[in-house]
Amino acid sequence: MIGALLGLLSVSASAQAPSQRNVSDDPAKDTAALVVRLSQITVDSLRTDEYKALLREEIEASMQLEPGVRTLYAVSDKKRPHEVTILEIYADEAAYRNHLATPHFQKYKRETLDMVRSLRLLDVDALIPELKIK
Amino acid sequence: MIGALLGLLSVSASAQAPSQRNVSDDPAKDTAALVVRLSQITVDSLRTDEYKALLREEIEASMQLEPGVRTLYAVSDKKRPHEVTILEIYADEAAYRNHLATPHFQKYKRETLDMVRSLRLLDVDALIPELKIK
Repeated sequence: MIGALLGLLSVSASAQAPSQRNVSDDPAKDTAALVVRLSQITVDSLRTDEYKALLREEIEASMQLEPGVRTLYAVSDKKRPHEVTILEIYADEAAYRNHLATPHFQKYKRETLDMVRSLRLLDVDALIPELKIK
Repeated sequence: MIGALLGLLSVSASAQAPSQRNVSDDPAKDTAALVVRLSQITVDSLRTDEYKALLREEIEASMQLEPGVRTLYAVSDKKRPHEVTILEIYADEAAYRNHLATPHFQKYKRETLDMVRSLRLLDVDALIPELKIK
């Protein structure tokens, strides 16, 4: 009974957090907690297309289903297409942790495990955190 | 007289190009010509703050004044703040060339010349070109 109540409280708290952020009129407040990262991934060059299809699916699900995922802008080197960089922006640490637990991220992680040769995660600061893509 | 006419034609053509792009209803058409790049810049670590102030000024002017500059999202490594990466997205090659000729870019280039230790320009393909930052 207490467990069920705690579960309810926890669901209620996480459901309210994004809407509280969205009603803020202060863009600086909205960006103060941003988590920004560059992921630098080297993929098995024989499986680049297969990897990109899975990454694309994962990004589209994240952008559609997770308000806290601000972007996952992925690019690949024209000369070395198996070298991928992703600019990842999350609303805050909770949004990032939530992302890692989603079924679509877990699927991507599991299905690309054999294709990824190296992964470097770079924690970064945004120069102008509130900047967008026109 | 002919020179003046040609000048007029050329101004008229460049003034019309962005609005022609903007009225398109097809997002794929709008992104087909995108020029996407990662700039990886190592700055003199004693002049990082000075460099970042100039970069910020240049980015704000570009985003405000140039419709063809879609983003210049700059980040710096938390552990090595003098290592800067910029995700640069331009509407097309003409927008990129126009950017290089602007007074604000020329000022940035001139005033940061002594601060930049290395500059690597990586031409990349976007996995989902039409992706934005929420």
